Amino acid sequence: VLDRMQAMEKIFSPRSVAFLGASNNRAKWGGIIFRNLRKGGFQGAIYPVNPGEKEVQGFKAYPKVSDIPGEVDLAVFTIPARLVPEAISDCVRKGVPAGVVITAGFAELGDEGRALQDEMVRRAKAGGMVLVGPNGQGIAVPKLGLFPWMPVLRPEPGAIGVVSQRGNVSTVFCEQLAEYGFGCSKIVSAGNCADVGWADYLEYLGRDPDTGVILLYVEGMDDGRSFFEAARRASRAKPIVVLKSGRTAAGTRAAASHTGVLAGSDHVFSSCCRQAGIVRAETVEEAVLLAATFVSSPLPGGRRVGIVTGGGGYGVITADAAARAGLDLVKLSDETIEKLRKFLPPWWSPNNPVDMAAGLGAYGGPMDLLPILLESGEVDGAIFLSAGWVYPMVDPLKADQDFHDSDRPEIRALVDQDVDFCRRLADYARGSDKPLLLHSNVARLAIRRRYPGLLEIIKRGLLLYPDIESVTRGFSALAERKEFLSRADRWN
Amino acid sequence: VLDRMQAMEKIFSPRSVAFLGASNNRAKWGGIIFRNLRKGGFQGAIYPVNPGEKEVQGFKAYPKVSDIPGEVDLAVFTIPARLVPEAISDCVRKGVPAGVVITAGFAELGDEGRALQDEMVRRAKAGGMVLVGPNGQGIAVPKLGLFPWMPVLRPEPGAIGVVSQRGNVSTVFCEQLAEYGFGCSKIVSAGNCADVGWADYLEYLGRDPDTGVILLYVEGMDDGRSFFEAARRASRAKPIVVLKSGRTAAGTRAAASHTGVLAGSDHVFSSCCRQAGIVRAETVEEAVLLAATFVSSPLPGGRRVGIVTGGGGYGVITADAAARAGLDLVKLSDETIEKLRKFLPPWWSPNNPVDMAAGLGAYGGPMDLLPILLESGEVDGAIFLSAGWVYPMVDPLKADQDFHDSDRPEIRALVDQDVDFCRRLADYARGSDKPLLLHSNVARLAIRRRYPGLLEIIKRGLLLYPDIESVTRGFSALAERKEFLSRADRWN
Repeated sequence: VLDRMQAMEKIFSPRSVAFLGASNNRAKWGGIIFRNLRKGGFQGAIYPVNPGEKEVQGFKAYPKVSDIPGEVDLAVFTIPARLVPEAISDCVRKGVPAGVVITAGFAELGDEGRALQDEMVRRAKAGGMVLVGPNGQGIAVPKLGLFPWMPVLRPEPGAIGVVSQRGNVSTVFCEQLAEYGFGCSKIVSAGNCADVGWADYLEYLGRDPDTGVILLYVEGMDDGRSFFEAARRASRAKPIVVLKSGRTAAGTRAAASHTGVLAGSDHVFSSCCRQAGIVRAETVEEAVLLAATFVSSPLPGGRRVGIVTGGGGYGVITADAAARAGLDLVKLSDETIEKLRKFLPPWWSPNNPVDMAAGLGAYGGPMDLLPILLESGEVDGAIFLSAGWVYPMVDPLKADQDFHDSDRPEIRALVDQDVDFCRRLADYARGSDKPLLLHSNVARLAIRRRYPGLLEIIKRGLLLYPDIESVTRGFSALAERKEFLSRADRWN
Repeated sequence: VLDRMQAMEKIFSPRSVAFLGASNNRAKWGGIIFRNLRKGGFQGAIYPVNPGEKEVQGFKAYPKVSDIPGEVDLAVFTIPARLVPEAISDCVRKGVPAGVVITAGFAELGDEGRALQDEMVRRAKAGGMVLVGPNGQGIAVPKLGLFPWMPVLRPEPGAIGVVSQRGNVSTVFCEQLAEYGFGCSKIVSAGNCADVGWADYLEYLGRDPDTGVILLYVEGMDDGRSFFEAARRASRAKPIVVLKSGRTAAGTRAAASHTGVLAGSDHVFSSCCRQAGIVRAETVEEAVLLAATFVSSPLPGGRRVGIVTGGGGYGVITADAAARAGLDLVKLSDETIEKLRKFLPPWWSPNNPVDMAAGLGAYGGPMDLLPILLESGEVDGAIFLSAGWVYPMVDPLKADQDFHDSDRPEIRALVDQDVDFCRRLADYARGSDKPLLLHSNVARLAIRRRYPGLLEIIKRGLLLYPDIESVTRGFSALAERKEFLSRADRWN
């Protein structure tokens, strides 16, 4: 018999998958999800299970799991809820160690559904089988091409491990991560967490060598204590970012109606997060950007930040945002000011943020200024604002053509210049042992519009922050983690 | 002599423009901005003024303004600061009623610069000339093709009037508005506000028939009283959205160094805004989306909202966001629940948000549910989440091709279906006298990637909100304005 973590390993790296409810009807979830599994590139064996079909989507079908000749590591369920317990017993007979129950209609529907869910779990536990779900949208392991889940989406392999209480949110997490160039190690839509729960996911992902950062979407939980204990252990090894909803009375009501789980006090949750070293996000996008932050930046020694900006207004807005994020926008020494002044126009007013004041390249550029700041010893890291400012100007919004089709030489010259600058900027940021966080107003367009300079930055694994609030928040989250690790070290 | 508002009219609809400092050197602002003026499509006369040139960029040049044969309505200045006062006197001699001083190097540099600025204003006032700036990036009037400003950008004509204390922020306002399909009536980079000030801009835009909404970026002001008095008058006629920075100590320091103007207490500013009917935004993007909100939606009778969503997680997050935005996510009556139930799968749990619970189109769609909600009499408006969910799935992120190049029939079928749905949704929203606000996770990509369904929505002048926080905030801002107008009515 496998221990719990060994059984969980079968969920995320199975050699073979049985699919209960696989269908030839592409308008049913059993048809859609089986197709996603089949098309994902998974190299192991795939066995559709459907007593009414000889073949499903070109694969030989079996009446039940115990009829399958080969070994089965993972069983996926889209059959109706009332049929699940008996099918679990059949899996146990076959020796299947792990299952993903996508089917809905359990505890979230009330007492009757809860009884069915309890019966399902009882049978699985008795047979040493672990279960993801029910009432989720499935799981995905991009590195293995394993996509037994609802969305057509296939995220790239990457370092972010996602566990989400709702499938919809895990899809949006993955979509948004992809827009910034980040992929995922494992993705789980945890649903009702009837068997495998938060503590199990945290323990598993905490040990998983492919996962560098853990990203969670939580609505509520039965057992907060075990969650935070597991989080405290895992967060020593890797950052954990949590988006928690059901924070207001209205949200709590909505949450209860979906998963039958009660959301607790938001305040208590926040303070437990701090103690456990969990970084808490306020919005879906903040959660995504914080996860990507931890993948792409070193930690700062403290909260002192230097900011370089091309234009005045942005400097003031950034100063506000930095202050609200708890960063220290240090006053620079006269010595550093004098070093900077050499690369700035005469009308520059010495300050941090260092505002380049529309100097038009006749004076100096960010690559003159940033090293002076970062090597001054006066800051723990830096932020650069407005990378790729040239693209909104040269990418036609209305024209039917891609801006790459343009052969206007003045555009090509601007873009070439930007590519050269971005390459130097990105290499410098990668080589720096202090965080240098990069912002671009067109970060969200960079990949789909193939802005060449910005792609140089993304290619090097760096995050482009889409707005000022997110880049200052990113820096403060890095500092927050550094502070947690220092505290944790002291306790040892 | 023209009165002040008549003189301001010359700024925004001049028949002729003199450009002091127009240059053949395209690497200087005098070369860049003159080119932008020349290329914008402006139908009036353009006179470069430069004593060192016979011709500038193909236009006959004049040594000084008083040498120009025709009448001059507007003078634009990029000449060095120390030369501006004398040039103003020359404009006065010529009878020029209005000027835009782009040149920097005035009050923002300290006492000496302030003296120069005062002298410039003294001469202008004595001659009945009004001045925008100095230390801004210029102005733009898209409807007239008039672009005497720094960025290459040419926003479309539209209903949003923008006044920004910093040029950089006005550029980003315009860029972001364009990404959502919204244009501008007038755009002013107000700089130091040495002569024309906030109250003047508010009075002018308040009366301007092309301006439906006023969008401001403010760092600080000398005369808060006149600002709020002008705002109170203007906001009866049209909504005013303000982004105010310099809110923290760090931001205030940064602001003072740019415009020599002190930012006041943030708290006081907020409460004055409420009294004056100003809607205050927290971030650049929120400001943009609120301005577009007022252009595109009717006002609700109150704060009761119904929400329709495709997936569970989003419903809970939205319930939280709605509560934080001060919306009332009303409990629906049994009668309305029964009407909705007909179009929802058996596992639907009755609630608001109305979660379609992955019913796969076999039951009903949003166009069945939204009219039931909006016509129930139980809500003041509605929010629909996740329009265009299909596009992230079918638009390849990595491939070098546009997704329109694809001839895969299954994609075409999905997209055709979406176009049909979006058309019905948008027509219904346009025809509704209650707000129906639409959200899409790919709102920011819709125009540049030409997602056909979403373009149907944008084409009808509707705003697609990019995230849940912005759509709930949009609804609350509409309610805020309704409440202000009701209070204002009672005072009369």
